[in-house]
Amino acid sequence: MIEDKNQNRTSLNEIGEFKLIELLTRNFKIKHKSTIKGIGDDAAVIDPDQKQIVITTDLLVEGVHFDLSYVPLKHLGYKSVIVNLSDVYAMNAEATQITISIAVSNRFPLEALEELYAGVETAAKIYNVDVVGGDTTSSNSGLLISITAIGVINKGEEIYRNGAKPNDLLVVTGDLGGAYMGLQILEREKEVFKVNPNNQPDLDGYTYIIERQLKPEARKDIIKLLKDLGVKPTAMIDISDGLSSEILHLCMHSKVGCDIYENKIPLDPQVISTCEEFKIDSTTIALNGGEDYELLMTISQEDFPKIKANPNLTIIGHITEENAGANLITRAETKIPLQAQGWKNFNNSN
Amino acid sequence: MIEDKNQNRTSLNEIGEFKLIELLTRNFKIKHKSTIKGIGDDAAVIDPDQKQIVITTDLLVEGVHFDLSYVPLKHLGYKSVIVNLSDVYAMNAEATQITISIAVSNRFPLEALEELYAGVETAAKIYNVDVVGGDTTSSNSGLLISITAIGVINKGEEIYRNGAKPNDLLVVTGDLGGAYMGLQILEREKEVFKVNPNNQPDLDGYTYIIERQLKPEARKDIIKLLKDLGVKPTAMIDISDGLSSEILHLCMHSKVGCDIYENKIPLDPQVISTCEEFKIDSTTIALNGGEDYELLMTISQEDFPKIKANPNLTIIGHITEENAGANLITRAETKIPLQAQGWKNFNNSN
Repeated sequence: MIEDKNQNRTSLNEIGEFKLIELLTRNFKIKHKSTIKGIGDDAAVIDPDQKQIVITTDLLVEGVHFDLSYVPLKHLGYKSVIVNLSDVYAMNAEATQITISIAVSNRFPLEALEELYAGVETAAKIYNVDVVGGDTTSSNSGLLISITAIGVINKGEEIYRNGAKPNDLLVVTGDLGGAYMGLQILEREKEVFKVNPNNQPDLDGYTYIIERQLKPEARKDIIKLLKDLGVKPTAMIDISDGLSSEILHLCMHSKVGCDIYENKIPLDPQVISTCEEFKIDSTTIALNGGEDYELLMTISQEDFPKIKANPNLTIIGHITEENAGANLITRAETKIPLQAQGWKNFNNSN
Repeated sequence: MIEDKNQNRTSLNEIGEFKLIELLTRNFKIKHKSTIKGIGDDAAVIDPDQKQIVITTDLLVEGVHFDLSYVPLKHLGYKSVIVNLSDVYAMNAEATQITISIAVSNRFPLEALEELYAGVETAAKIYNVDVVGGDTTSSNSGLLISITAIGVINKGEEIYRNGAKPNDLLVVTGDLGGAYMGLQILEREKEVFKVNPNNQPDLDGYTYIIERQLKPEARKDIIKLLKDLGVKPTAMIDISDGLSSEILHLCMHSKVGCDIYENKIPLDPQVISTCEEFKIDSTTIALNGGEDYELLMTISQEDFPKIKANPNLTIIGHITEENAGANLITRAETKIPLQAQGWKNFNNSN
C-alpha cells in the first residue's frame, strides 16, 4: 500500500544516513527550557532543575505490534509516542523529552518516513515534549520503532506499583476494551479487502473503537486532575496489556490481593455492541484486550469524597489482603480468580 | 551456528514476555545511588542530584551492524553497551545508567539471549552503569538491539561539537582503523569456512584488530585523564563512523576548517601489516573505517604543555579558518580535501 500511494518517491539509497536524519528532524522545535541540547551532538543534554527524572522505552515492530496494511504511518508515529508517554504519566511525572530511533528497510521511501515523523511531531506538540535524539538505520525487513521517553518529577511525588494497601479503592480512567475491538474491526476489513479490493469498508458505527486502536491518547489530563483534586494514588500503572494483567502486576508488587466487580468495569456502548456482533464476552475483552493506555490506580479510602462522581474515574473494586488473592466478582456474584492473558508477543510470531 | 552450539535450548514460546524479562535481568545489580528505581515499574527513576543529564541511543541490527556467524552473542551484548557509552564520554559526562531493548525472532533460544545479556552485564559492571529498564519483544526476522545510555555532568562541563576555534590542536586517542581491519579478517575467515567447514581459522597475528572489532572499549579513562591533566577540550566527538566523517562533523558544527597530517595518524603495527596483506591503503582505512570508538577532540594551544608526550593523546593537526576547508596533508606534502565515506548503512542493505 505504501508503495502505491506515493506519487513522489525518494529512495533512501539516494540520501544517506546523515541527510536522512536532517530531513526527518528539521521540523522538530525545542520548547522546554530543560532541553539544553537536542538533536545534533553525541548526546542530548537535559537540565532537570533539581527534579528527578523518569525514563522508559518501548519497541514497536512491524508484523508484531502493527500492520501497515491498515495503520497509516502518521498514526503509527503518533501512537509510538503515546505508548511511551503513558508510562511516564503512570509514574505521576511530567513528560518532557523523547528520543526516536527507527530501523527501516529500503522498501520505504523518504516520503513514508516523513509521514511517520509528522505523526511523532504532532504527538510531541500536543503533549509538549521535545524530540532530543535518536538513531536511523536500515533493516533487512520491515520497520521497527524504538522510543525512549523522559519525564521529570519532584522527589517523593513518584507513584510506583508497590504502594497499594488493603482497603484502598481500585480505580480506572476512561473505558476499556475499545482498542482491542477496534483492531478486530480493522482485521475484518483487511480480510474483506483481500477478497474484494473494490469493496469500500463501512466503518460507521465503529469510529470510536477504531480511533482507540489507531490514535490512542495518554492520560496526561489525569495527572493534572489528581493534582487539582489533591489526591495522590498509593499505586499506579498504565493499562497497556489488559486490565487483568495490570491488576496482577500491581497486586504482586504491592503484595496484596483484590476484588474487582464485573459490573463496575467501564465499557463504551460501541465496545458492548461490537462484542455482541462478534459474539465475544465484553468483560473478557476489557480484562485482556490491551492497548487502552488508561491508568489503573489505588486510592486510599479517605480520598473517596474527592473522587466520587468524577466522570474520569471509575471505582471497580478494592484491595484485600494478599492471601485473599486477586478475584473477579461476576455479575452472578460468583468469585473467580483473575488470570493474566495479556499480549504474549512470542506466541504470535516466528 | 547459534542453533548448533546449544545443548540446552529453551524456546521463547514456552516462556512469555514477563518471565523472559525476569530471567534476563535477574543478575543486574543497582550500584548508583542516583538510581532510585530500576527495572520493574512503568519507568525507571533517576536522581541526578542537581547535575544535568546526557542521553543517547543507538540501534544495532542483525545483518546490518553485526553478523552472528562470527560475532559471539556475549561480545555483541558488550559492544552494544560500549557504542552508547562512547557517546556519553564524548560529552565529557559520567555514564550512570542504560536501558536495553531487544526484538528477537523465535530462532533464538533463551540460552542465546542469556549470553547476550551476560555481555551487557559485564560491560555494565566494568563501566559502572546500572541497567534500569528496557523492552523485550519478538521480531519477524533476526535480532535488533536498542540501547539508551544516560550520564550526568555538572552544568557547564559538557563538551559539544561546536566549540573548536582556529589554531586549536586536533587530538585523537588510541589508534585508528583496527576495528575495520578486524572485520576484514573475520569476513575472510567466514568465506574460508563456507568453502571448507573443517578448516580451522588461523587468527594468530590478528588478535589485536579482531578484539578491536569484537570487543571495543569506550574511553572512560580519557575523561578522567583530561580532568587529571586539567584540560577541557574545546570540542569533542567519538569516532564511530571513521575519522574523516567525524572531523567533518566537528568542522561543520564549529564553522571551522582544519589541516590534518597523514603521517601523524596513529596506526597499530597490526593495522599496517594487515593493510599491506590486503593491499589497501592504511590511511584510507584510518580515515573511513569506523567503529574504533576513540575520541576526537580539539584542544587550545595553551594546553599543549599539559598534553604533549602523553601516550594516550596524539596531535594529528590543527583547526583553521572555515574558508580554508578541511584538508589532509599527505606524506608527499600535497593538500587534499577530506571526504566523508563513513558507514552508509542504507547502501548495504535491501
